[in-house]
Amino acid sequence: MGTAGKVIKCKAAVLWGMNQPFSIEEIEVAPPKAKEVRVKVLATGICRTDDHVIKGAMVSKFPVILGHEAVGVVESVGEGVTTVRPGDKVIPLFLPQCRECNACCNPEGNLCIRSDLTGRGVLADGTTRFMCKGKPVQHFMNTSTFTEYTVLDESSVAKIDGAAAPEKACLIGCGFSTGYGAAVKTAKVTPGSTCVVFGLGGVGLSVIMGCKAAGASRIIGIDINKDKFQKALAVGATECINPKDFTKPISEVLSDMTGNTVQYTFEVIGRLETMVDALSSCHMNYGTSVVVGAPPSAKTLTYDPMLLFTGRTWKGCVFGGETSGPSADSGWKSRDDVPKLVTELLEEKFDLDQLITHVLPFESIKEGFELLYSGQSIRTVLTF
Amino acid sequence: MGTAGKVIKCKAAVLWGMNQPFSIEEIEVAPPKAKEVRVKVLATGICRTDDHVIKGAMVSKFPVILGHEAVGVVESVGEGVTTVRPGDKVIPLFLPQCRECNACCNPEGNLCIRSDLTGRGVLADGTTRFMCKGKPVQHFMNTSTFTEYTVLDESSVAKIDGAAAPEKACLIGCGFSTGYGAAVKTAKVTPGSTCVVFGLGGVGLSVIMGCKAAGASRIIGIDINKDKFQKALAVGATECINPKDFTKPISEVLSDMTGNTVQYTFEVIGRLETMVDALSSCHMNYGTSVVVGAPPSAKTLTYDPMLLFTGRTWKGCVFGGETSGPSADSGWKSRDDVPKLVTELLEEKFDLDQLITHVLPFESIKEGFELLYSGQSIRTVLTF
Repeated sequence: MGTAGKVIKCKAAVLWGMNQPFSIEEIEVAPPKAKEVRVKVLATGICRTDDHVIKGAMVSKFPVILGHEAVGVVESVGEGVTTVRPGDKVIPLFLPQCRECNACCNPEGNLCIRSDLTGRGVLADGTTRFMCKGKPVQHFMNTSTFTEYTVLDESSVAKIDGAAAPEKACLIGCGFSTGYGAAVKTAKVTPGSTCVVFGLGGVGLSVIMGCKAAGASRIIGIDINKDKFQKALAVGATECINPKDFTKPISEVLSDMTGNTVQYTFEVIGRLETMVDALSSCHMNYGTSVVVGAPPSAKTLTYDPMLLFTGRTWKGCVFGGETSGPSADSGWKSRDDVPKLVTELLEEKFDLDQLITHVLPFESIKEGFELLYSGQSIRTVLTF
Repeated sequence: MGTAGKVIKCKAAVLWGMNQPFSIEEIEVAPPKAKEVRVKVLATGICRTDDHVIKGAMVSKFPVILGHEAVGVVESVGEGVTTVRPGDKVIPLFLPQCRECNACCNPEGNLCIRSDLTGRGVLADGTTRFMCKGKPVQHFMNTSTFTEYTVLDESSVAKIDGAAAPEKACLIGCGFSTGYGAAVKTAKVTPGSTCVVFGLGGVGLSVIMGCKAAGASRIIGIDINKDKFQKALAVGATECINPKDFTKPISEVLSDMTGNTVQYTFEVIGRLETMVDALSSCHMNYGTSVVVGAPPSAKTLTYDPMLLFTGRTWKGCVFGGETSGPSADSGWKSRDDVPKLVTELLEEKFDLDQLITHVLPFESIKEGFELLYSGQSIRTVLTF
């Protein structure tokens, strides 16, 4: 407990501006204030959402410390923190759960009002705990995990089982849960159903794992890159197709393949055209299509509303949550459900090794992003 | 049983072409073939869908006998009919339930493959049972109820309780069930929730009745015609607003009114702009919006997919059916559920008198359509 109450000097990957390289810097991390938690990061995944800030597709102030998919251990806690204590293993939550707001109090909601998806860049009290070269450094999505130490609001911290391996469990902080939850929570895939997943990246693979866990009897993976088929089949797809191999619209191809019985489709790319393809590809009456891939900002989508009128359901999700219809078991509530997913990981209900292609030391963060850009990695995890 | 097996001559309202007046003619109604049922119509409602054929918005061949919302009594049955017999009171089903097709076999489906929503105009065997002045006359949506006698496929006939008053129960054949089911079946409105209904015609009023039956604590009716507010309040709306009274977008008005807690919205007009307004007006994370109004054909809808991505659910329904998510109680299956709705009517679980503004003799069908066009009627029912 030698560091509690003191400023910690440590290494962090600071992004000084858009389209600049990460710079490994010594930063100062202030002690946690009331209702805050300081966490030593053990492992953090590299997610495309981090890159959105680098490229400017997601708004942020600079300098900033990115990273939002991690496992750490509580170093110290501020006044009034009751849900974690020093030494607890935790997952930072980019989607907090304050348990007080409109969304938290609704059984079907999960988009907590304290979420920072718009680049506020500070903790709940409106300030930052990071300093570098005498300048304040912004937080990112209430998490900022590309650093040896970070400070989080208590509402953004989930205590997990200490037995969990950090370099695996970190994926539960974002990519895995988003995809897996889209299948088991948002779509509520039913046993024996036919599912189609558009886009076979890490989140798409997690959707497949969710469909399989839910008991789908047929899971069709779709990608224009055939190199992704092997892994998709390994995690549960029953077959994979490349739309470029067909002249017919993909919705017709899928209807022919399945005798018009596609009940669930998932768009896990973020392309507007594919979102409409996915909607068209589920059954006109009882089909459900889930938008998992983030749509490009400030772009509108045009489609024929008859696709919906005949009975289809079209829905989005954040962090694999949100469902429609009454259910005692709706949506990932982050602080409640992340620990349960870690328990399921330890019970080997799913296998995150399939998603982790590279584990690198934190200092190799640039190499980790190169692997993302080249398409060579599914998930690269950085360890400290 | 004097007429069984014989051609029946009777009166019908024949439409000889688009934009022509109905012509009350003597027609010949052939006996039912195998798996068909001949029905004496007792009462039939006038629905805007009938008018869509007159105006050309819905495809049909001519001459045709329209009408699809009715109660009748079985006059005779063809070979192999097992579910109804002469003397049974029945509701013709524009949405059949063959109990064999893909949609019928799916617990969440209701759009039976035998539906005729595209102007096929014949019974399942490919022929018509109507003749007028030596010419075959087309059927309409497997029903054709603007006639003293009609012939239906057995899959389009639901036996109902003989105690039901025909001029009330006929609304269960279309308008009432479409709206009521959109609330209780498609959206699955939860007790205590806040609902918003865009469009206060007969179907919109039925949606309000469904929201009320489901236990919604706040039901906001929206219409640009204030004359419709009184009836909406009478059937269960807790307040009504006119969007023209506000300068802000209606989604903001509703968010302000409700503290951003609108869980369910219903578009019951069929306007593309209102569909997007309804989607925007439900909670960004846990809201569900249902498209009940038929969209204009061959028109596309443009919207910001971020509205969906944050967690909203957008869905359509046909005949108040189709739901997403596993449930033993999903969607109206027409032959199964129409009789149950009639039982609920007899148990006074809802009050159809509120929706019926005019009852006229069948011969006054033109006057009935005039009442539709002038906006003076909610539902006009014709009796024989």
